[in-house]
Amino acid sequence: MMTIESIYKNIQTKKSFLCVGLDTDINKIPNFLLNFNDPVFEFNRQIVDATHDLAIAYKPNTAFYESRGYEGWLSLERTADYIKSNYPEIFLIADAKRGDIGNTSKMYAKAFFEEMEFDAITVAPYMGEDSIKPFIDFKNKFIIILSLTSNKGSADFQMLKNCENKNYLYEEVIKKSKQWGTAENIMYVVGATKSDKLKKIRKIIPDNFLLIPGIGAQGGSLKETIDNGKNNKGGLIINSSRGIIYAGNSNNFAEKARQQALILQKNMSENV
Amino acid sequence: MMTIESIYKNIQTKKSFLCVGLDTDINKIPNFLLNFNDPVFEFNRQIVDATHDLAIAYKPNTAFYESRGYEGWLSLERTADYIKSNYPEIFLIADAKRGDIGNTSKMYAKAFFEEMEFDAITVAPYMGEDSIKPFIDFKNKFIIILSLTSNKGSADFQMLKNCENKNYLYEEVIKKSKQWGTAENIMYVVGATKSDKLKKIRKIIPDNFLLIPGIGAQGGSLKETIDNGKNNKGGLIINSSRGIIYAGNSNNFAEKARQQALILQKNMSENV
Repeated sequence: MMTIESIYKNIQTKKSFLCVGLDTDINKIPNFLLNFNDPVFEFNRQIVDATHDLAIAYKPNTAFYESRGYEGWLSLERTADYIKSNYPEIFLIADAKRGDIGNTSKMYAKAFFEEMEFDAITVAPYMGEDSIKPFIDFKNKFIIILSLTSNKGSADFQMLKNCENKNYLYEEVIKKSKQWGTAENIMYVVGATKSDKLKKIRKIIPDNFLLIPGIGAQGGSLKETIDNGKNNKGGLIINSSRGIIYAGNSNNFAEKARQQALILQKNMSENV
Repeated sequence: MMTIESIYKNIQTKKSFLCVGLDTDINKIPNFLLNFNDPVFEFNRQIVDATHDLAIAYKPNTAFYESRGYEGWLSLERTADYIKSNYPEIFLIADAKRGDIGNTSKMYAKAFFEEMEFDAITVAPYMGEDSIKPFIDFKNKFIIILSLTSNKGSADFQMLKNCENKNYLYEEVIKKSKQWGTAENIMYVVGATKSDKLKKIRKIIPDNFLLIPGIGAQGGSLKETIDNGKNNKGGLIINSSRGIIYAGNSNNFAEKARQQALILQKNMSENV
Protein backbone atom coordinates (compact mmCIF):
# COMPACT_ATOMS: atom_id res chain seq x y z
CA MET A 1 0.00 0.00 0.00
CA MET A 2 1.45 3.31 -1.11
CA THR A 3 0.88 6.62 0.64
CA ILE A 4 2.40 10.06 0.24
CA GLU A 5 4.53 9.26 3.29
CA SER A 6 5.88 6.04 1.79
CA ILE A 7 6.70 7.76 -1.49
CA TYR A 8 8.40 10.56 0.43
CA LYS A 9 10.42 8.05 2.42
CA ASN A 10 11.62 6.53 -0.85
CA ILE A 11 12.53 9.92 -2.24
CA GLN A 12 14.65 10.56 0.83
CA THR A 13 16.25 7.11 0.98
CA LYS A 14 17.08 6.97 -2.71
CA LYS A 15 17.69 10.70 -3.03
CA SER A 16 15.69 10.54 -6.19
CA PHE A 17 12.48 11.70 -7.84
CA LEU A 18 13.09 9.39 -10.75
CA CYS A 19 10.37 7.51 -12.58
CA VAL A 20 11.49 5.27 -15.41
CA GLY A 21 9.00 5.21 -18.27
CA LEU A 22 8.67 1.72 -19.72
CA ASP A 23 7.62 2.76 -23.23
CA THR A 24 8.93 -0.54 -24.46
CA ASP A 25 8.79 -0.90 -28.24
CA ILE A 26 9.63 -4.41 -29.41
CA ASN A 27 11.20 -2.90 -32.54
CA LYS A 28 13.67 -0.87 -30.49
CA ILE A 29 14.97 -3.43 -28.00
CA PRO A 30 18.26 -5.30 -28.51
CA ASN A 31 17.95 -8.11 -31.05
CA PHE A 32 19.22 -10.86 -28.78
CA LEU A 33 16.14 -10.44 -26.58
CA LEU A 34 13.93 -11.72 -29.39
CA ASN A 35 15.05 -15.24 -28.44
CA PHE A 36 13.24 -14.96 -25.13
CA ASN A 37 9.69 -16.21 -24.70
CA ASP A 38 8.54 -12.67 -23.86
CA PRO A 39 11.18 -10.24 -25.16
CA VAL A 40 9.43 -7.11 -23.89
CA PHE A 41 9.05 -8.49 -20.38
CA GLU A 42 12.68 -9.64 -20.38
CA PHE A 43 13.77 -6.16 -21.46
CA ASN A 44 11.68 -4.55 -18.71
CA ARG A 45 12.90 -7.04 -16.11
CA GLN A 46 16.54 -6.27 -16.84
CA ILE A 47 15.92 -2.51 -16.91
CA VAL A 48 14.12 -2.67 -13.57
CA ASP A 49 16.75 -4.91 -11.95
CA ALA A 50 19.46 -2.49 -13.09
CA THR A 51 17.76 0.71 -11.97
CA HIS A 52 15.42 -0.06 -9.05
CA ASP A 53 17.73 1.46 -6.42
CA LEU A 54 17.81 4.74 -8.36
CA ALA A 55 14.11 5.04 -9.16
CA ILE A 56 11.09 5.60 -6.94
CA ALA A 57 8.58 4.74 -9.67
CA TYR A 58 8.09 2.92 -12.96
CA LYS A 59 5.55 3.89 -15.55
CA PRO A 60 4.65 1.41 -18.28
CA ASN A 61 2.87 3.18 -21.10
CA THR A 62 -0.08 1.02 -22.07
CA ALA A 63 -0.06 2.00 -25.75
CA PHE A 64 3.22 0.21 -26.35
CA TYR A 65 1.77 -3.02 -24.93
CA GLU A 66 -1.61 -2.79 -26.63
CA SER A 67 0.09 -2.33 -29.99
CA ARG A 68 1.09 -6.01 -29.73
CA GLY A 69 -2.37 -7.29 -28.92
CA TYR A 70 -3.02 -9.77 -26.12
CA GLU A 71 0.63 -10.82 -26.08
CA GLY A 72 1.53 -7.24 -25.32
CA TRP A 73 -1.07 -7.15 -22.59
CA LEU A 74 0.57 -10.26 -21.12
CA SER A 75 3.93 -8.46 -21.15
CA LEU A 76 2.29 -5.60 -19.27
CA GLU A 77 0.79 -7.94 -16.66
CA ARG A 78 4.10 -9.75 -16.19
CA THR A 79 5.95 -6.45 -15.85
CA ALA A 80 3.56 -5.09 -13.24
CA ASP A 81 3.64 -8.35 -11.32
CA TYR A 82 7.44 -8.56 -11.43
CA ILE A 83 7.92 -5.04 -10.12
CA LYS A 84 5.42 -5.30 -7.27
CA SER A 85 6.64 -8.78 -6.25
CA ASN A 86 10.32 -7.91 -6.21
CA TYR A 87 10.38 -4.22 -5.37
CA PRO A 88 7.26 -3.53 -3.33
CA GLU A 89 8.50 -0.06 -2.37
CA ILE A 90 8.20 1.06 -6.00
CA PHE A 91 5.29 3.31 -6.98
CA LEU A 92 3.80 1.68 -10.06
CA ILE A 93 2.00 3.91 -12.54
CA ALA A 94 -0.12 2.82 -15.50
CA ASP A 95 0.27 5.57 -18.06
CA ALA A 96 -3.05 4.84 -19.69
CA LYS A 97 -4.80 8.23 -19.94
CA ARG A 98 -8.22 6.66 -19.52
CA GLY A 99 -11.54 8.33 -18.74
CA ASP A 100 -15.15 7.54 -19.65
CA ILE A 101 -18.65 7.56 -18.17
CA GLY A 102 -18.93 6.19 -14.64
CA ASN A 103 -19.64 2.50 -15.19
CA THR A 104 -16.89 2.37 -17.82
CA SER A 105 -14.26 4.18 -15.76
CA LYS A 106 -15.01 1.69 -13.01
CA MET A 107 -14.04 -1.10 -15.40
CA TYR A 108 -10.78 0.66 -16.26
CA ALA A 109 -10.08 1.04 -12.55
CA LYS A 110 -10.68 -2.68 -12.07
CA ALA A 111 -8.31 -3.48 -14.93
CA PHE A 112 -5.39 -1.57 -13.44
CA PHE A 113 -6.09 -1.64 -9.69
CA GLU A 114 -7.54 -5.14 -9.25
CA GLU A 115 -6.59 -7.30 -12.23
CA MET A 116 -3.11 -5.78 -12.04
CA GLU A 117 -1.44 -4.21 -9.03
CA PHE A 118 -0.83 -0.69 -10.24
CA ASP A 119 -0.73 1.99 -7.55
CA ALA A 120 -1.80 4.75 -9.90
CA ILE A 121 -3.23 5.48 -13.32
CA THR A 122 -3.12 8.58 -15.48
CA VAL A 123 -6.58 9.86 -16.45
CA ALA A 124 -7.89 12.43 -18.94
CA PRO A 125 -10.25 15.02 -17.44
CA TYR A 126 -12.35 15.98 -20.48
CA MET A 127 -15.47 14.08 -19.35
CA GLY A 128 -15.51 15.61 -15.86
CA GLU A 129 -16.16 14.47 -12.32
CA ASP A 130 -18.16 11.29 -12.87
CA SER A 131 -15.47 10.00 -15.25
CA ILE A 132 -12.81 10.46 -12.54
CA LYS A 133 -14.68 9.47 -9.39
CA PRO A 134 -14.75 5.69 -9.99
CA PHE A 135 -10.95 5.69 -9.94
CA ILE A 136 -10.82 7.75 -6.75
CA ASP A 137 -13.27 5.39 -5.10
CA PHE A 138 -10.61 2.66 -5.04
CA LYS A 139 -8.97 2.76 -1.62
CA ASN A 140 -5.22 3.29 -1.33
CA LYS A 141 -4.82 4.05 -5.03
CA PHE A 142 -3.90 7.27 -6.82
CA ILE A 143 -5.16 8.89 -9.98
CA ILE A 144 -2.92 11.23 -11.90
CA ILE A 145 -4.99 13.78 -13.78
CA LEU A 146 -3.71 15.37 -16.99
CA SER A 147 -3.56 19.10 -16.44
CA LEU A 148 -0.78 20.75 -18.42
CA THR A 149 0.96 18.34 -20.76
CA SER A 150 4.40 18.72 -22.33
CA ASN A 151 3.46 18.36 -25.98
CA LYS A 152 2.89 21.04 -28.59
CA GLY A 153 -0.84 20.30 -28.74
CA SER A 154 -1.22 21.28 -25.08
CA ALA A 155 -1.70 24.81 -26.40
CA ASP A 156 -4.80 23.86 -28.40
CA PHE A 157 -7.24 23.48 -25.51
CA GLN A 158 -5.39 23.46 -22.17
CA MET A 159 -4.40 27.11 -22.65
CA LEU A 160 -7.88 28.40 -23.46
CA LYS A 161 -9.10 30.99 -20.97
CA ASN A 162 -12.33 30.40 -19.14
CA CYS A 163 -14.37 33.56 -19.56
CA GLU A 164 -15.89 33.45 -16.12
CA ASN A 165 -12.72 33.68 -14.07
CA LYS A 166 -9.87 34.07 -16.57
CA ASN A 167 -8.45 30.70 -15.57
CA TYR A 168 -6.74 28.65 -18.22
CA LEU A 169 -8.48 25.33 -18.81
CA TYR A 170 -5.59 23.46 -17.17
CA GLU A 171 -5.99 25.61 -14.04
CA GLU A 172 -9.72 25.03 -14.09
CA VAL A 173 -9.08 21.28 -14.28
CA ILE A 174 -6.80 21.47 -11.23
CA LYS A 175 -9.04 23.77 -9.20
CA LYS A 176 -12.19 21.75 -9.78
CA SER A 177 -10.72 18.27 -9.55
CA LYS A 178 -8.74 18.88 -6.38
CA GLN A 179 -12.11 19.03 -4.60
CA TRP A 180 -12.98 15.52 -5.76
CA GLY A 181 -10.37 13.89 -3.54
CA THR A 182 -7.30 14.66 -1.49
CA ALA A 183 -3.54 14.73 -1.91
CA GLU A 184 -3.68 11.10 -0.78
CA ASN A 185 -5.46 10.03 -3.95
CA ILE A 186 -4.99 12.73 -6.60
CA MET A 187 -1.79 13.71 -8.39
CA TYR A 188 -1.37 15.80 -11.54
CA VAL A 189 0.56 15.55 -14.78
CA VAL A 190 2.48 18.76 -15.41
CA GLY A 191 4.87 18.92 -18.35
CA ALA A 192 8.45 19.88 -17.49
CA THR A 193 8.60 22.00 -20.60
CA LYS A 194 6.31 24.43 -18.75
CA SER A 195 8.58 25.10 -15.78
CA ASP A 196 7.46 28.72 -15.62
CA LYS A 197 3.94 27.59 -14.81
CA LEU A 198 4.96 25.11 -12.13
CA LYS A 199 5.24 27.73 -9.40
CA LYS A 200 1.73 28.92 -10.05
CA ILE A 201 0.38 25.36 -10.02
CA ARG A 202 2.24 24.60 -6.80
CA LYS A 203 0.43 27.49 -5.14
CA ILE A 204 -2.97 26.07 -6.14
CA ILE A 205 -2.10 22.56 -4.98
CA PRO A 206 0.66 22.76 -2.36
CA ASP A 207 0.22 19.15 -1.24
CA ASN A 208 -0.49 17.02 -4.31
CA PHE A 209 2.28 15.13 -6.04
CA LEU A 210 3.09 16.14 -9.60
CA LEU A 211 4.11 13.66 -12.28
CA ILE A 212 6.52 15.46 -14.57
CA PRO A 213 7.13 14.06 -18.05
CA GLY A 214 9.31 15.81 -20.54
CA ILE A 215 12.73 15.51 -18.93
CA GLY A 216 15.22 14.39 -21.55
CA ALA A 217 13.62 13.54 -24.89
CA GLN A 218 11.06 16.33 -24.49
CA GLY A 219 13.60 18.86 -23.25
CA GLY A 220 12.64 20.23 -19.82
CA SER A 221 15.26 21.52 -17.37
CA LEU A 222 15.70 19.32 -14.33
CA LYS A 223 16.96 21.81 -11.74
CA GLU A 224 14.36 24.43 -12.63
CA THR A 225 11.63 21.80 -12.41
CA ILE A 226 12.69 20.67 -8.94
CA ASP A 227 13.12 24.23 -7.65
CA ASN A 228 9.66 25.23 -8.82
CA GLY A 229 7.83 22.00 -8.12
CA LYS A 230 9.01 20.31 -4.95
CA ASN A 231 7.16 20.55 -1.66
CA ASN A 232 7.74 19.40 1.92
CA LYS A 233 6.91 15.76 1.02
CA GLY A 234 9.05 15.73 -2.09
CA GLY A 235 5.97 16.23 -4.20
CA LEU A 236 7.56 15.26 -7.50
CA ILE A 237 7.80 12.16 -9.65
CA ILE A 238 10.01 13.01 -12.58
CA ASN A 239 9.82 10.72 -15.57
CA SER A 240 12.37 9.80 -18.17
CA SER A 241 11.60 7.10 -20.71
CA ARG A 242 13.56 6.88 -23.93
CA GLY A 243 16.67 8.60 -22.56
CA ILE A 244 17.11 5.75 -20.09
CA ILE A 245 15.66 2.60 -21.59
CA TYR A 246 17.18 3.05 -25.05
CA ALA A 247 20.59 4.26 -23.85
CA GLY A 248 22.17 1.06 -25.16
CA ASN A 249 21.20 -1.42 -27.84
CA SER A 250 23.36 -4.49 -27.23
CA ASN A 251 23.93 -7.05 -24.49
CA ASN A 252 24.83 -4.33 -22.01
CA PHE A 253 21.65 -2.28 -22.55
CA ALA A 254 20.65 -2.56 -18.89
CA GLU A 255 24.04 -1.31 -17.71
CA LYS A 256 23.77 1.61 -20.15
CA ALA A 257 20.29 2.35 -18.85
CA ARG A 258 21.66 2.35 -15.32
CA GLN A 259 24.36 4.84 -16.31
CA GLN A 260 21.75 7.26 -17.64
CA ALA A 261 19.49 6.75 -14.63
CA LEU A 262 22.47 7.40 -12.37
CA ILE A 263 23.23 10.71 -14.09
CA LEU A 264 19.65 11.85 -13.54
CA GLN A 265 19.54 10.54 -9.97
CA LYS A 266 22.81 12.33 -9.12
CA ASN A 267 21.47 15.59 -10.49
CA MET A 268 18.30 15.04 -8.51
CA SER A 269 20.13 14.13 -5.29
CA GLU A 270 21.63 17.60 -5.09
CA ASN A 271 18.13 19.06 -4.93
CA VAL A 272 16.11 16.53 -2.93
CA MET B 1 -12.48 -0.40 -46.37
CA MET B 2 -15.15 1.89 -45.00
CA THR B 3 -16.06 5.30 -46.42
CA ILE B 4 -18.86 7.74 -45.73
CA GLU B 5 -20.51 6.42 -48.88
CA SER B 6 -20.38 2.80 -47.72
CA ILE B 7 -21.77 3.72 -44.31
CA TYR B 8 -24.52 5.72 -45.99
CA LYS B 9 -25.34 2.80 -48.26
CA ASN B 10 -25.75 0.62 -45.18
CA ILE B 11 -27.97 3.18 -43.50
CA GLN B 12 -30.22 3.16 -46.55
CA THR B 13 -30.25 -0.61 -47.04
CA LYS B 14 -30.87 -1.42 -43.39
CA LYS B 15 -32.97 1.68 -42.75
CA SER B 16 -31.03 2.06 -39.57
CA PHE B 17 -28.53 4.27 -37.75
CA LEU B 18 -28.09 1.64 -35.07
CA CYS B 19 -24.80 0.91 -33.39
CA VAL B 20 -24.83 -1.86 -30.79
CA GLY B 21 -22.48 -1.15 -27.92
CA LEU B 22 -20.71 -4.30 -26.79
CA ASP B 23 -20.10 -3.27 -23.17
CA THR B 24 -19.91 -6.92 -22.28
CA ASP B 25 -19.54 -7.54 -18.56
CA ILE B 26 -18.83 -11.19 -17.74
CA ASN B 27 -20.83 -10.75 -14.52
CA LYS B 28 -23.95 -9.75 -16.41
CA ILE B 29 -24.13 -12.37 -19.17
CA PRO B 30 -26.35 -15.48 -18.90
CA ASN B 31 -24.86 -18.14 -16.64
CA PHE B 32 -24.92 -20.94 -19.19
CA LEU B 33 -22.33 -19.08 -21.28
CA LEU B 34 -19.74 -19.58 -18.56
CA ASN B 35 -19.31 -23.14 -19.85
CA PHE B 36 -17.84 -21.81 -23.09
CA ASN B 37 -14.11 -21.44 -23.57
CA ASP B 38 -14.54 -17.67 -24.04
CA PRO B 39 -17.94 -16.70 -22.58
CA VAL B 40 -17.65 -13.02 -23.50
CA PHE B 41 -16.81 -13.79 -27.10
CA GLU B 42 -19.63 -16.32 -27.30
CA PHE B 43 -22.04 -13.72 -25.91
CA ASN B 44 -20.88 -11.15 -28.45
CA ARG B 45 -21.00 -13.65 -31.31
CA GLN B 46 -24.62 -14.54 -30.58
CA ILE B 47 -25.61 -10.88 -30.15
CA VAL B 48 -23.97 -9.96 -33.44
CA ASP B 49 -25.47 -12.91 -35.32
CA ALA B 50 -28.91 -11.97 -34.02
CA THR B 51 -28.71 -8.24 -34.79
CA HIS B 52 -26.32 -7.70 -37.74
CA ASP B 53 -29.10 -7.01 -40.25
CA LEU B 54 -30.49 -4.27 -38.00
CA ALA B 55 -27.23 -2.55 -37.09
CA ILE B 56 -24.77 -0.58 -39.19
CA ALA B 57 -22.06 -0.57 -36.49
CA TYR B 58 -20.81 -2.35 -33.39
CA LYS B 59 -18.86 -0.66 -30.67
CA PRO B 60 -16.95 -2.80 -28.16
CA ASN B 61 -16.01 -0.71 -25.15
CA THR B 62 -12.39 -1.55 -24.33
CA ALA B 63 -12.75 -1.03 -20.57
CA PHE B 64 -14.99 -4.07 -20.22
CA TYR B 65 -12.36 -6.25 -21.91
CA GLU B 66 -9.33 -4.79 -20.11
CA SER B 67 -11.01 -5.41 -16.77
CA ARG B 68 -10.41 -9.13 -17.40
CA GLY B 69 -6.73 -8.77 -18.26
CA TYR B 70 -5.16 -10.49 -21.27
CA GLU B 71 -8.07 -12.95 -21.48
CA GLY B 72 -10.38 -9.99 -21.90
CA TRP B 73 -8.10 -8.58 -24.55
CA LEU B 74 -8.35 -11.94 -26.36
CA SER B 75 -12.15 -11.72 -26.23
CA LEU B 76 -11.88 -8.26 -27.80
CA GLU B 77 -9.60 -9.51 -30.57
CA ARG B 78 -11.88 -12.47 -31.29
CA THR B 79 -14.94 -10.22 -31.36
CA ALA B 80 -13.36 -7.75 -33.78
CA ASP B 81 -12.12 -10.54 -36.00
CA TYR B 82 -15.49 -12.32 -36.00
CA ILE B 83 -17.40 -9.21 -36.96
CA LYS B 84 -15.07 -8.13 -39.77
CA SER B 85 -14.78 -11.69 -41.15
CA ASN B 86 -18.49 -12.42 -41.18
CA TYR B 87 -20.08 -9.03 -41.67
CA PRO B 88 -17.58 -6.92 -43.59
CA GLU B 89 -20.16 -4.19 -44.22
CA ILE B 90 -20.28 -3.40 -40.49
CA PHE B 91 -18.54 -0.25 -39.25
CA LEU B 92 -16.46 -1.41 -36.29
CA ILE B 93 -15.69 1.12 -33.58
CA ALA B 94 -13.26 0.72 -30.70
CA ASP B 95 -14.70 2.80 -27.90
CA ALA B 96 -11.34 3.37 -26.26
CA LYS B 97 -11.15 7.14 -25.67
CA ARG B 98 -7.39 7.17 -26.16
CA GLY B 99 -5.07 10.14 -26.71
CA ASP B 100 -1.45 10.82 -25.79
CA ILE B 101 1.69 12.44 -27.19
CA GLY B 102 2.45 11.65 -30.83
CA ASN B 103 4.63 8.55 -30.61
CA THR B 104 2.24 7.05 -28.07
CA SER B 105 -0.94 7.80 -30.00
CA LYS B 106 0.72 6.12 -32.96
CA MET B 107 1.04 2.95 -30.87
CA TYR B 108 -2.64 3.11 -29.91
CA ALA B 109 -3.52 3.53 -33.58
CA LYS B 110 -1.43 0.45 -34.41
CA ALA B 111 -3.20 -1.53 -31.68
CA PHE B 112 -6.67 -0.87 -33.04
CA PHE B 113 -6.08 -0.29 -36.77
CA GLU B 114 -3.32 -2.80 -37.51
CA GLU B 115 -3.24 -5.45 -34.77
CA MET B 116 -7.04 -5.50 -34.89
CA GLU B 117 -9.27 -4.48 -37.77
CA PHE B 118 -11.26 -1.66 -36.23
CA ASP B 119 -12.51 0.99 -38.67
CA ALA B 120 -12.63 3.70 -36.05
CA ILE B 121 -11.56 4.62 -32.54
CA THR B 122 -12.91 7.18 -30.10
CA VAL B 123 -10.27 9.68 -28.94
CA ALA B 124 -10.10 12.30 -26.19
CA PRO B 125 -9.07 15.78 -27.38
CA TYR B 126 -7.48 17.23 -24.23
CA MET B 127 -3.88 16.91 -25.45
CA GLY B 128 -4.55 18.63 -28.77
CA GLU B 129 -3.56 18.22 -32.39
CA ASP B 130 -0.40 16.11 -32.11
CA SER B 131 -2.28 13.61 -29.93
CA ILE B 132 -4.93 13.18 -32.63
CA LYS B 133 -2.89 13.36 -35.83
CA PRO B 134 -1.25 9.91 -35.58
CA PHE B 135 -4.70 8.34 -35.72
CA ILE B 136 -5.74 10.46 -38.70
CA ASP B 137 -2.56 9.48 -40.53
CA PHE B 138 -3.83 5.91 -40.89
CA LYS B 139 -5.45 5.65 -44.32
CA ASN B 140 -9.10 4.62 -44.63
CA LYS B 141 -9.70 4.79 -40.88
CA PHE B 142 -11.83 7.14 -38.82
CA ILE B 143 -11.31 8.83 -35.51
CA ILE B 144 -14.27 9.85 -33.42
CA ILE B 145 -13.40 12.83 -31.25
CA LEU B 146 -15.16 13.42 -27.93
CA SER B 147 -16.86 16.79 -28.13
CA LEU B 148 -20.04 16.94 -26.05
CA THR B 149 -20.57 13.81 -24.00
CA SER B 150 -23.82 12.58 -22.46
CA ASN B 151 -22.74 12.29 -18.84
CA LYS B 152 -23.29 14.72 -15.97
CA GLY B 153 -19.56 15.57 -15.82
CA SER B 154 -19.72 16.97 -19.36
CA ALA B 155 -20.72 20.26 -17.70
CA ASP B 156 -17.45 20.47 -15.74
CA PHE B 157 -15.14 21.42 -18.59
CA GLN B 158 -16.88 20.94 -21.95
CA MET B 159 -19.29 23.78 -21.16
CA LEU B 160 -16.64 26.33 -20.16
CA LYS B 161 -16.67 29.42 -22.35
CA ASN B 162 -13.51 30.39 -24.18
CA CYS B 163 -12.96 34.06 -23.42
CA GLU B 164 -11.59 34.92 -26.83
CA ASN B 165 -14.61 34.01 -28.92
CA LYS B 166 -17.33 32.94 -26.44
CA ASN B 167 -17.24 29.38 -27.79
CA TYR B 168 -17.89 26.58 -25.37
CA LEU B 169 -14.93 24.23 -25.06
CA TYR B 170 -16.81 21.51 -26.94
CA GLU B 171 -17.39 23.93 -29.84
CA GLU B 172 -13.76 24.94 -29.75
CA VAL B 173 -12.79 21.26 -29.96
CA ILE B 174 -15.00 20.78 -33.00
CA LYS B 175 -13.95 23.99 -34.77
CA LYS B 176 -10.24 23.39 -34.32
CA SER B 177 -10.14 19.67 -34.90
CA LYS B 178 -12.25 19.71 -38.05
CA GLN B 179 -9.29 21.41 -39.72
CA TRP B 180 -7.01 18.48 -38.90
CA GLY B 181 -8.75 16.14 -41.32
CA THR B 182 -11.91 15.76 -43.36
CA ALA B 183 -15.35 14.23 -42.99
CA GLU B 184 -13.73 11.10 -44.47
CA ASN B 185 -11.62 10.57 -41.38
CA ILE B 186 -13.11 12.57 -38.51
CA MET B 187 -16.38 11.96 -36.69
CA TYR B 188 -17.58 13.37 -33.37
CA VAL B 189 -19.17 12.03 -30.20
CA VAL B 190 -22.22 14.08 -29.31
CA GLY B 191 -24.40 12.96 -26.42
CA ALA B 192 -28.07 12.43 -27.25
CA THR B 193 -29.03 13.99 -23.94
CA LYS B 194 -28.00 17.31 -25.52
CA SER B 195 -30.39 17.25 -28.46
CA ASP B 196 -30.88 21.01 -28.22
CA LYS B 197 -27.23 21.53 -29.09
CA LEU B 198 -27.16 19.11 -32.01
CA LYS B 199 -28.57 21.63 -34.49
CA LYS B 200 -25.84 24.10 -33.65
CA ILE B 201 -23.15 21.43 -33.98
CA ARG B 202 -24.58 20.27 -37.31
CA LYS B 203 -24.16 23.81 -38.64
CA ILE B 204 -20.46 23.84 -37.71
CA ILE B 205 -19.85 20.41 -39.23
CA PRO B 206 -22.48 19.70 -41.88
CA ASP B 207 -20.60 16.74 -43.33
CA ASN B 208 -19.03 14.81 -40.46
CA PHE B 209 -20.73 11.78 -38.98
CA LEU B 210 -21.81 12.01 -35.36
CA LEU B 211 -21.67 9.10 -32.95
CA ILE B 212 -24.56 9.50 -30.55
CA PRO B 213 -24.47 7.65 -27.24
CA GLY B 214 -27.12 8.08 -24.63
CA ILE B 215 -30.14 6.55 -26.33
CA GLY B 216 -31.89 4.28 -23.87
CA ALA B 217 -30.01 3.83 -20.59
CA GLN B 218 -28.84 7.44 -20.68
CA GLY B 219 -32.22 8.81 -21.71
CA GLY B 220 -31.99 10.77 -24.98
CA SER B 221 -34.94 11.08 -27.36
CA LEU B 222 -34.50 9.21 -30.62
CA LYS B 223 -36.72 11.20 -32.97
CA GLU B 224 -35.42 14.56 -31.79
CA THR B 225 -31.86 13.32 -32.20
CA ILE B 226 -32.42 12.20 -35.78
CA ASP B 227 -34.31 15.37 -36.74
CA ASN B 228 -31.57 17.59 -35.40
CA GLY B 229 -28.57 15.50 -36.37
CA LYS B 230 -29.01 13.78 -39.71
CA ASN B 231 -27.49 15.07 -42.92
CA ASN B 232 -27.59 14.13 -46.61
CA LYS B 233 -25.34 11.10 -46.05
CA GLY B 234 -27.21 9.89 -43.01
CA GLY B 235 -24.57 11.41 -40.79
CA LEU B 236 -25.56 9.56 -37.62
CA ILE B 237 -24.43 6.46 -35.80
CA ILE B 238 -26.76 6.03 -32.84
CA ASN B 239 -25.57 3.76 -30.10
CA SER B 240 -27.45 1.61 -27.64
CA SER B 241 -25.58 -0.76 -25.34
CA ARG B 242 -27.21 -2.08 -22.19
CA GLY B 243 -30.79 -1.68 -23.46
CA ILE B 244 -30.05 -4.19 -26.21
CA ILE B 245 -27.40 -6.60 -24.98
CA TYR B 246 -28.89 -7.16 -21.53
CA ALA B 247 -32.53 -7.34 -22.69
CA GLY B 248 -32.60 -11.01 -21.71
CA ASN B 249 -30.64 -13.12 -19.27
CA SER B 250 -31.37 -16.73 -20.22
CA ASN B 251 -30.87 -19.03 -23.21
CA ASN B 252 -32.86 -16.71 -25.45
CA PHE B 253 -30.81 -13.58 -24.63
CA ALA B 254 -29.86 -13.07 -28.28
CA GLU B 255 -33.48 -13.23 -29.41
CA LYS B 256 -34.39 -10.71 -26.69
CA ALA B 257 -31.57 -8.48 -27.85
CA ARG B 258 -32.89 -8.70 -31.40
CA GLN B 259 -36.35 -7.66 -30.23
CA GLN B 260 -34.94 -4.52 -28.62
CA ALA B 261 -32.74 -3.76 -31.60
CA LEU B 262 -35.76 -4.18 -33.86
CA ILE B 263 -37.79 -1.67 -31.85
CA LEU B 264 -35.02 0.90 -32.21
CA GLN B 265 -34.46 0.11 -35.89
CA LYS B 266 -38.17 0.46 -36.64
CA ASN B 267 -38.29 3.82 -34.93
CA MET B 268 -35.22 4.84 -36.89
CA SER B 269 -36.57 3.55 -40.21
CA GLU B 270 -39.35 6.11 -40.14
CA ASN B 271 -36.80 8.89 -40.06
CA VAL B 272 -33.93 7.62 -42.24
